[in-house]
Amino acid sequence: MTGAQSLVRTLIASGVDLCLTNPGTSEIHFVAALDAEPEMRAVLGLFEGVVTGAADGYARMTGKPACTLLHLGPGLGNGLANLHNARRARVPVVNIVGEHATYHRALDAPLTSDIESVAANVSQWVRTSQDAARVARDGAEAVAASYGPPGQVATLILPADVAWSPGGVPAEPLPRRFPQAPDSERVEEVARTLRAAGVQSTLLMNGTALSEEGLLLAGKVAAATGARLFSDTFVTRAARGAGRVAAGALPYLGEMAMGLLEGTRHLVLVGTRAPVSFFAYPDKPGTLMPKGCQVLTLAEPLEDGVAALTALVEALDATGAIAVTAPEERPPLPSGALTPEIVAQVVAHLLPEHAIVMNEGATAARAVPGLLARSAPHDWLDLTGGAIGQGMPAATGAALACPDRKVVNLEADGSGMYTLQALWTQAREALDVTTVILSNRRYAILEMEYRRVGAGDPSAATRGLFDLSRPQLDWVSLARGMGVAGMRASTAGELAKGLRRGIEEGGPYLVEAVL
Amino acid sequence: MTGAQSLVRTLIASGVDLCLTNPGTSEIHFVAALDAEPEMRAVLGLFEGVVTGAADGYARMTGKPACTLLHLGPGLGNGLANLHNARRARVPVVNIVGEHATYHRALDAPLTSDIESVAANVSQWVRTSQDAARVARDGAEAVAASYGPPGQVATLILPADVAWSPGGVPAEPLPRRFPQAPDSERVEEVARTLRAAGVQSTLLMNGTALSEEGLLLAGKVAAATGARLFSDTFVTRAARGAGRVAAGALPYLGEMAMGLLEGTRHLVLVGTRAPVSFFAYPDKPGTLMPKGCQVLTLAEPLEDGVAALTALVEALDATGAIAVTAPEERPPLPSGALTPEIVAQVVAHLLPEHAIVMNEGATAARAVPGLLARSAPHDWLDLTGGAIGQGMPAATGAALACPDRKVVNLEADGSGMYTLQALWTQAREALDVTTVILSNRRYAILEMEYRRVGAGDPSAATRGLFDLSRPQLDWVSLARGMGVAGMRASTAGELAKGLRRGIEEGGPYLVEAVL
Repeated sequence: MTGAQSLVRTLIASGVDLCLTNPGTSEIHFVAALDAEPEMRAVLGLFEGVVTGAADGYARMTGKPACTLLHLGPGLGNGLANLHNARRARVPVVNIVGEHATYHRALDAPLTSDIESVAANVSQWVRTSQDAARVARDGAEAVAASYGPPGQVATLILPADVAWSPGGVPAEPLPRRFPQAPDSERVEEVARTLRAAGVQSTLLMNGTALSEEGLLLAGKVAAATGARLFSDTFVTRAARGAGRVAAGALPYLGEMAMGLLEGTRHLVLVGTRAPVSFFAYPDKPGTLMPKGCQVLTLAEPLEDGVAALTALVEALDATGAIAVTAPEERPPLPSGALTPEIVAQVVAHLLPEHAIVMNEGATAARAVPGLLARSAPHDWLDLTGGAIGQGMPAATGAALACPDRKVVNLEADGSGMYTLQALWTQAREALDVTTVILSNRRYAILEMEYRRVGAGDPSAATRGLFDLSRPQLDWVSLARGMGVAGMRASTAGELAKGLRRGIEEGGPYLVEAVL
Repeated sequence: MTGAQSLVRTLIASGVDLCLTNPGTSEIHFVAALDAEPEMRAVLGLFEGVVTGAADGYARMTGKPACTLLHLGPGLGNGLANLHNARRARVPVVNIVGEHATYHRALDAPLTSDIESVAANVSQWVRTSQDAARVARDGAEAVAASYGPPGQVATLILPADVAWSPGGVPAEPLPRRFPQAPDSERVEEVARTLRAAGVQSTLLMNGTALSEEGLLLAGKVAAATGARLFSDTFVTRAARGAGRVAAGALPYLGEMAMGLLEGTRHLVLVGTRAPVSFFAYPDKPGTLMPKGCQVLTLAEPLEDGVAALTALVEALDATGAIAVTAPEERPPLPSGALTPEIVAQVVAHLLPEHAIVMNEGATAARAVPGLLARSAPHDWLDLTGGAIGQGMPAATGAALACPDRKVVNLEADGSGMYTLQALWTQAREALDVTTVILSNRRYAILEMEYRRVGAGDPSAATRGLFDLSRPQLDWVSLARGMGVAGMRASTAGELAKGLRRGIEEGGPYLVEAVL
């Protein structure tokens, strides 16, 4: 048995059954090993950013890692941005990065580079496997490491000769560490604070606290104490929509976030950290909290948010409290030319039950969360690390994870162009993803940020650098070029028609919503 | 004056007049500083791989660096693969990578990562600028460092507050170091060897030795001594075609390279290193030289290849020798369905004078170099680092560098999909690039390599991972989606029609040559 064969068998035994890849020569023995193991599904992406973003989306929906298979340093580099997003999402991902044979590295062949230096940027766990007899054990360790807690990126660098040499020995899966409940002292302290000053308190949440179960518990806390509920600005995954307890996202703009938190004297963190500004701005604060606000940590990101909320509900004697859930109030189907508000109304009118909504719509999607909160129950995924180009790949991975659910990807045109190759994988695997391109034909967020960073008013030349209209992107042609059907919509009626087509028929579809 | 303003002014004073960018919020003050400096042309790419690959192509054609402007760690990551190619091409590139404000880093906002760890993978010179008063000087050092010799990637990390703070002081350009001629002792030793055993000697060249001037000198050496001339398998830039001295590229396949070098007892390196196998293969040698072959270095990569060859010609008393140059013998226009050979004939029949040919055609372009060697004189650019996705961006950069020349980009479908966003920049800047997609609808090189690495015969499932035909890519639609006109060709006649259209009219055009 080769090292590669023992590694693939061990990954499968450890629960990894999806390999997302764009392989090259140095990964061929791993590819060959996949051949004998039908339990591992292999899915091809035409660019590594698709591969790593899909691994992120898959992990968010399954809670377990897929493995990527990447081609040396450049392949890892191409996948780095979406690994950054996965790192910030705190989800498990296992990278297998092919490397030259151990004895070939010294020759400094053209593809040689220091892979570990790149891997360190996104990985909590990095190892270069040294021999075929050990590589399976390395793989088992990588899987265990990826679970954290919290979930993280583990990168195993696989030299070609380690892969092809005989002597591979499959390894036992290693026990993973599960997130723990916080100690009772912390729970008691939070309970005391909420009992005394619930209406001056806010719970800020991310991670499992935002599951339907976690939110229901948080809703009991809110009902019993008057505390308010918010989620991070960008969430890994949140259960939202009718029938769920609502926890609005803290706004991206620091001044708005500060406004919302005004009056909060106690900020209780559940699976997250104290809020900070996404970027620095001259003369604006970096930490987004009212003066004198006390920060209490109910659950660290590495702890079990649901268990923490369960304990808090018990400590508050609030098991019987009635959490307020969102009613279903879908907006009527609007008419007229598309605006961000009209797009949001159409989507909220038509969203099917239990859809997965991947949002990378940036400024043009700003009205969507508010309206979707009273539309069908759904899971909402955000761009977590700010590295654009996540939406289409993560939607692809979510669809691979949940073949019975509809995935709706709200995608900005600028962000979508980063990893549009994902559409090809959606077509190839017949994935049930409806992509809505929010096509405002500019990097609108940079026009806004220009003023916010104190650079004054952008000149015509500068606005040109934020302008995607020369030439105009034609997303229907781009999609067709990768085997995905689509249509362009300029009015509410056209968008509704396209969205219905995407929702009612299986497989991938794209609607370019021209704003 | 802000730090950013002093930096832009210093870059311009140092001879950098092109900024290739996809900026974000943290780079806005640099963007704002560009506004007042019309001498610096700013060109937008829709993905950072386009930006960095264009910087590589630009440097190959001008000999000087463009600057990139990239958005934190993820932006650098997206550009890493083409920076790897630039590193292997030994060309100057200056990266400006935006970073959070110095005091904001500690907050670990979502886009925070260790940028230096990524930069180290490709950069010989990395620095994080610390204050506005110093940043211009840092920029001048980055430009000087990028020149090497040999040329290299220099990365300056620019925190937002260093960019926006007052106190910037433009710096004087720093003297660049020029490549030196090798010492006369080495020249004498090579001359002695060639005089004694010229017919058993081979010159292996890269860098400036492959300029028209360098090759003419090498041709005199060959005429005077009987030595043979080869270039590296993948060259940074080579003057080729009718009227030029031919130096065929060493084949990619090690066994073929070894075959060609059989009988070589003295290998003379000019601007390169001894040849090694691109990948390791079980039971195949890594170093590609006949047993007992002596290696002599006439010029290291950091030395001046033309000066070295000039000195060698003088030492050989061969100034008057008549170098053999390639005759013009264009193949007739073929007919019939497209094959790699027919594609090569059509291109060789129609290539205009002094075109720049960027080759990332992989296996499907295998017949091109042989036929182009007797077609119009041209400059040939290769994929130097093996990180696919270089062709379209480098063609874009070459066109920015040489607006009066036609750029022909021979592009594999698999490689082209990596950075297809470059077509949009070509349309936006009306660049004179004709792209020929060699569309064999598979990663054909991996089918070949599968056997070469000893993995046996690929199964149907494995071949599926190398297959780009499900769904078929429609390159004409993809190009149209980014504002580039194109056509599909299945026969020699159709390809000729498309190529003529691309060559005769200005601006970008794409022909999908279906093999």
